Amino acid sequence: MSIFSTEKLEQVLPKIKVLLEERIYPLEKNYLNLPFNEVADELGKIREIVKEKGLWNLHLSESHGGLGFSLVEFGQISELLGTSPYGHYCFNCNAPDIGNQELLLGNASDYIKQTFLEPLIQGKTHSCFSMTEPEFAGSNPVMMATTAVKEGDNYIINGHKWFTTAADGADFAIVMANTNPEAESPYQKASMIIVPTNTEGFHLTRNISIMGEENNGYFSHAEIEYKDCKVPIKNLIGNEGEGFKLAQQRLGPGRIHHCMRWIGICERAFDLMCKRAATRQLSEGVKLGHKQTIQNWIAESRAEINASRYMVLHTAQKIDEVGAKEARMEISTIKFYVANVLMNVLDRAIQVHGALGITDDIILSFWYRHERGARIYDGPDEVHKTALAGKILKNYGLDIKK
Amino acid sequence: MSIFSTEKLEQVLPKIKVLLEERIYPLEKNYLNLPFNEVADELGKIREIVKEKGLWNLHLSESHGGLGFSLVEFGQISELLGTSPYGHYCFNCNAPDIGNQELLLGNASDYIKQTFLEPLIQGKTHSCFSMTEPEFAGSNPVMMATTAVKEGDNYIINGHKWFTTAADGADFAIVMANTNPEAESPYQKASMIIVPTNTEGFHLTRNISIMGEENNGYFSHAEIEYKDCKVPIKNLIGNEGEGFKLAQQRLGPGRIHHCMRWIGICERAFDLMCKRAATRQLSEGVKLGHKQTIQNWIAESRAEINASRYMVLHTAQKIDEVGAKEARMEISTIKFYVANVLMNVLDRAIQVHGALGITDDIILSFWYRHERGARIYDGPDEVHKTALAGKILKNYGLDIKK
Amino acid sequence: MSIFSTEKLEQVLPKIKVLLEERIYPLEKNYLNLPFNEVADELGKIREIVKEKGLWNLHLSESHGGLGFSLVEFGQISELLGTSPYGHYCFNCNAPDIGNQELLLGNASDYIKQTFLEPLIQGKTHSCFSMTEPEFAGSNPVMMATTAVKEGDNYIINGHKWFTTAADGADFAIVMANTNPEAESPYQKASMIIVPTNTEGFHLTRNISIMGEENNGYFSHAEIEYKDCKVPIKNLIGNEGEGFKLAQQRLGPGRIHHCMRWIGICERAFDLMCKRAATRQLSEGVKLGHKQTIQNWIAESRAEINASRYMVLHTAQKIDEVGAKEARMEISTIKFYVANVLMNVLDRAIQVHGALGITDDIILSFWYRHERGARIYDGPDEVHKTALAGKILKNYGLDIKK
Amino acid sequence: MSIFSTEKLEQVLPKIKVLLEERIYPLEKNYLNLPFNEVADELGKIREIVKEKGLWNLHLSESHGGLGFSLVEFGQISELLGTSPYGHYCFNCNAPDIGNQELLLGNASDYIKQTFLEPLIQGKTHSCFSMTEPEFAGSNPVMMATTAVKEGDNYIINGHKWFTTAADGADFAIVMANTNPEAESPYQKASMIIVPTNTEGFHLTRNISIMGEENNGYFSHAEIEYKDCKVPIKNLIGNEGEGFKLAQQRLGPGRIHHCMRWIGICERAFDLMCKRAATRQLSEGVKLGHKQTIQNWIAESRAEINASRYMVLHTAQKIDEVGAKEARMEISTIKFYVANVLMNVLDRAIQVHGALGITDDIILSFWYRHERGARIYDGPDEVHKTALAGKILKNYGLDIKK
Repeated sequence: MSIFSTEKLEQVLPKIKVLLEERIYPLEKNYLNLPFNEVADELGKIREIVKEKGLWNLHLSESHGGLGFSLVEFGQISELLGTSPYGHYCFNCNAPDIGNQELLLGNASDYIKQTFLEPLIQGKTHSCFSMTEPEFAGSNPVMMATTAVKEGDNYIINGHKWFTTAADGADFAIVMANTNPEAESPYQKASMIIVPTNTEGFHLTRNISIMGEENNGYFSHAEIEYKDCKVPIKNLIGNEGEGFKLAQQRLGPGRIHHCMRWIGICERAFDLMCKRAATRQLSEGVKLGHKQTIQNWIAESRAEINASRYMVLHTAQKIDEVGAKEARMEISTIKFYVANVLMNVLDRAIQVHGALGITDDIILSFWYRHERGARIYDGPDEVHKTALAGKILKNYGLDIKK
Repeated sequence: MSIFSTEKLEQVLPKIKVLLEERIYPLEKNYLNLPFNEVADELGKIREIVKEKGLWNLHLSESHGGLGFSLVEFGQISELLGTSPYGHYCFNCNAPDIGNQELLLGNASDYIKQTFLEPLIQGKTHSCFSMTEPEFAGSNPVMMATTAVKEGDNYIINGHKWFTTAADGADFAIVMANTNPEAESPYQKASMIIVPTNTEGFHLTRNISIMGEENNGYFSHAEIEYKDCKVPIKNLIGNEGEGFKLAQQRLGPGRIHHCMRWIGICERAFDLMCKRAATRQLSEGVKLGHKQTIQNWIAESRAEINASRYMVLHTAQKIDEVGAKEARMEISTIKFYVANVLMNVLDRAIQVHGALGITDDIILSFWYRHERGARIYDGPDEVHKTALAGKILKNYGLDIKK
Repeated sequence: MSIFSTEKLEQVLPKIKVLLEERIYPLEKNYLNLPFNEVADELGKIREIVKEKGLWNLHLSESHGGLGFSLVEFGQISELLGTSPYGHYCFNCNAPDIGNQELLLGNASDYIKQTFLEPLIQGKTHSCFSMTEPEFAGSNPVMMATTAVKEGDNYIINGHKWFTTAADGADFAIVMANTNPEAESPYQKASMIIVPTNTEGFHLTRNISIMGEENNGYFSHAEIEYKDCKVPIKNLIGNEGEGFKLAQQRLGPGRIHHCMRWIGICERAFDLMCKRAATRQLSEGVKLGHKQTIQNWIAESRAEINASRYMVLHTAQKIDEVGAKEARMEISTIKFYVANVLMNVLDRAIQVHGALGITDDIILSFWYRHERGARIYDGPDEVHKTALAGKILKNYGLDIKK
Repeated sequence: MSIFSTEKLEQVLPKIKVLLEERIYPLEKNYLNLPFNEVADELGKIREIVKEKGLWNLHLSESHGGLGFSLVEFGQISELLGTSPYGHYCFNCNAPDIGNQELLLGNASDYIKQTFLEPLIQGKTHSCFSMTEPEFAGSNPVMMATTAVKEGDNYIINGHKWFTTAADGADFAIVMANTNPEAESPYQKASMIIVPTNTEGFHLTRNISIMGEENNGYFSHAEIEYKDCKVPIKNLIGNEGEGFKLAQQRLGPGRIHHCMRWIGICERAFDLMCKRAATRQLSEGVKLGHKQTIQNWIAESRAEINASRYMVLHTAQKIDEVGAKEARMEISTIKFYVANVLMNVLDRAIQVHGALGITDDIILSFWYRHERGARIYDGPDEVHKTALAGKILKNYGLDIKK
């Protein structure tokens, strides 16, 4: 048994697997080409089953109704859920809701917790996270034009955001905005503030068409104008100027979630690739899998997926033990490494399927399109490599920022 | 001036460029996410302008109303047209029509030429080419289940095809079917037969959803059932049993067309990448292009695109001089080499654009999805590499098929 | 602290590190370009110190005078020793002696243990392993022409071997020879027999010049003719026909040793690369490490080395728990994966050093030459990938050998 | 026939080929592991034959006793000569002599031509080029500490150089030294001055041991101290302050020479790889070449070598037509592209040969060691990529130096 296995985990994983195989995978073929809203009802039914089976909110501590899994344990659940695009949603641990839950649990006032967090945990509402601005490079987070100006008991928020995932259908957005433009450090200018989506001035301009698809709901990414949005000061999360601190906090476990989800995708793609190799006939007695090129791809994919999983789980363990801040180098490492493994494995799996691989008759082309962003969001490869190298070189006496 | 340049070419290229810049590129942003049929009228207008300007059918010999360009010359036109997904269509030299025109011009009876070819050349009809079958590996063309059985003056065709590009909206299909199942060589069993799409038993099952998109018309790829399709024997192209010979013939220049089109895409992507690098600001005074990683991508892309163009044009020249058969090694080489360069350049260009790169606000994501097939159709990389190595090793005394 | 750390290990590693830094690394610069025999005396002195400090034979169980480390623990020692080409030799756990010791400990008769193993363990003799034959592909071990024919109480051995590492200076060779040519399975024809190097007919033809260097002793690879070599039957290891079984057994931990040694090399190269990046000036105020390309290499190397170490240590742990046979897939995986990481890291480290990198003023060029074989010996990448894919595809119902 | 072929060339190439096959290749096996000086006599005999056959100095114009080949033509000769490490030397067009000849022919005074150039052209002397300094990054040529101070009619030269190829045995060095430290532009401080190697103060400290080998003569790379070296002012090449201008001039054709030589190496390695693939038996009836991985390597190598040759010859043609300055982008492109192809092809060829590939029984391991520098000398990959991207981005309005 794996070094990362626990009894508690072994009890839960098979139950999840059954649900995936019996209820969730079968939906994909007909549903993945539909807009999310046409699928939501069906998924809602599964969410009820998940609750009934005691598998709801597996990411939360016991005191919040979860099972108190460590990050290492939940990582392995996340991998399994990642094998279907619907997995995390059905178990109420989909991004951005999971990140927002973690954020609010750790930092929000009782008022926010009661008003916004509680319904979210119960799966009655949805949320989004509104940070990236089209005018500025996401890789340089301190460049941001959105402002939140205090006026009496309220903040007046103005700004332009995009790639606000799942804003369409969300009940509230957590908005990153400059509250303290005069702060000494650029990292202390921003704050996180909750803006209900029915606030006047909250305008969802469009669901951005990505890779040919606008979609909606949980599967959409919105462009949003905030125009004189007035929200009470008590909607502030944590303290003023803590925006970046909180964002960093949110990203640590977030990257573990992403990486493990990607590994889940890899495993599903790997399985499809092997199945195809073992069955597709090229000529009398010759299967695809008899070709050494295919064998190479299978072997290389296996190696890279194993490497990814070990690195991510060891990183999760370090976070469990000493916190995300101490594990920043490892977190940067897995972010770029696993995202690239994901691209490799998907690409090989498609090539093994030939023309079928680019059709929507199988799921690979879905991920090929929807996961190209993995090398971009939450920091592009380039930024993480530079960050990692910078920390390493600091130990050798070089400050790469000077 | 380039060694491959000619006066005639230099007269035509700037005219094409003007049309692309003034009429065709501007359409892309609003139209690329629409189904082809909603765009066809607008493109039809441009096709009329192309005719007026004497740029219609540039691929044809003078006797057929073209300008009698060599393959080397037309390759360079094709590159330019390839910079827009609408380019070839507007100039009536889009696949599969161009390949079908070349095929019929070289091999069809006067009856066929008058009935089917002439309207195609005039742009009044569309055609498709129906060869690949879902049940069999495209890389082994002799495995094919479609049959054409003679019955009186007719062939009765039965079979199941897919990836019949642009069948939706086509007036006729050129169908590959076994007419001579008892032939000694598996390469002499098949024939090419014209089937009008209004023939009873011609059933377009679906436009296959590819990378999330069914589309229609020129931008679709159909699955087709041929059920007791009765067509007159005079619809046979060439002689019975010549199917593979003709297919090979069709593929030689076809691969030049594809490769040059891909190079056109590369150049457009390269241009977008450089523009972005030169203008996107990362921080005060720092542009994306100041980053060495971006510089590496620009330099490597430039090298690979140049290498691609030289190889393809030299191959075209060899075909011009000694025919496609003698140039088979070169043709295999460019097929896999350029398809991979295309993937590399598109991928880098997307990464340089960050989140914008995966949106449909720019054209890169369109090609990222639609051109993944380049490494698959017309023979996957693996097949071309083995074919090339096989021919090389034959000169060293090894028959890799034994 | 790492999950793979143990108290016993933490006590030993610092002591080894001190010896490396104070005694062993300083030898390299002047000695690495000398033939081994001119270095042996100096290394002999260090071997004595190692004994005095109780660090001798760390790979052996306590009953054999070692410290009873598990493979996981010893792997980490091996990594540290691998940081110098002299490391394993000074601690008496260099290949091929370590493999031979493990082999004899597990399988040899008391006679052999007393006569051959005991002095080897004490460091009084050296040994070699004679399997590969120049006429046959090493990747197909059953092709072998060396024979051992029984004659009375002796075997008469005839054959031609090469790449018998450290044969020069060895006291005995373990020779793989066909004893049972009529055996049903090709895997049951060969046996392992000890041949003292002073046996008549044992002829070391040459130390093969590899990458420009013949060298001698522990750093040489011999070509050997066995001509009517007569050795007593009691020199047989295990039973007749067990040659391949024993070879497999020998290779399992052997590959862990190699991989961990390679990781040691990687870490040293990584350290040199970072030092250079942090100190080499390009222009006023600009160090090599300020260049993003260098940063990329550092980040990618860090990721790949971490991935390697995790995979190897998890594999070692599996061997510790369930034996090498059960871990064959993992062993194949690390063999090709880590060998390629080694090449990558060395190559990047050299490039970072510029012209200095190819000189013998630093150690990188030594490994660049001497470790290119890592992708070849003990099974080339290609063989391990096919082996791994074969085992995977078997689970999908495909036998790739048919 | 190739577009780059000429009648004159076709007359000469076969003669060179005969000499290579009959006289030069056969020397390699026994000689490549010897120091150059032990081989020089034998090579001297071949140089005489070359003269007799009218193949001496093929790089020179007719007025200087050559055959007046264009750079495109000579490039193809250089490729052929490159197939043996002795090729260029036997034909008197080895680096650095060829570069020095070109330099002096174009820029030196009559005195220098008579005194230094004439004997060099006749093959009676050897020369070297002394520019790189160990203390400074070669990629930043303006950092240089060597000085030449005028004193009466002489320059007094002081400095420390290394990687002065073939200094051992040379009659004179062309030294790059700062003569005008106060010049406005850093590019106008240095001059080129001829220093006979018997000048007092010229001290060849060592032949640098590179990849395990010091060697000597033409195959060595020296470290040199210039200590108060007094040489007459008339030894100045061109004018004071023109050092960088001349160095640039020298490098343009020099990079064509290198690239074509590398392509020659690639072709030889490719041939060895194919021979091995076609003959090495893996098992009954199965040759290495039957393995798809080997086929892939052969196909990819063929593509890359073809791409390299086209790019280099088109670049040579541009230099022939409009000069090296106009072709700087192309020159940078081929420098990094071809150097990397060389590494790839050599690496694959070695892997195909298995253990044999790393021995000195075949020539591959020689090039593997001696050509690793190709990605470093004359500007590392990184510098050329940045230079190329910089020129491209300038056209997009970005100055990457700001």
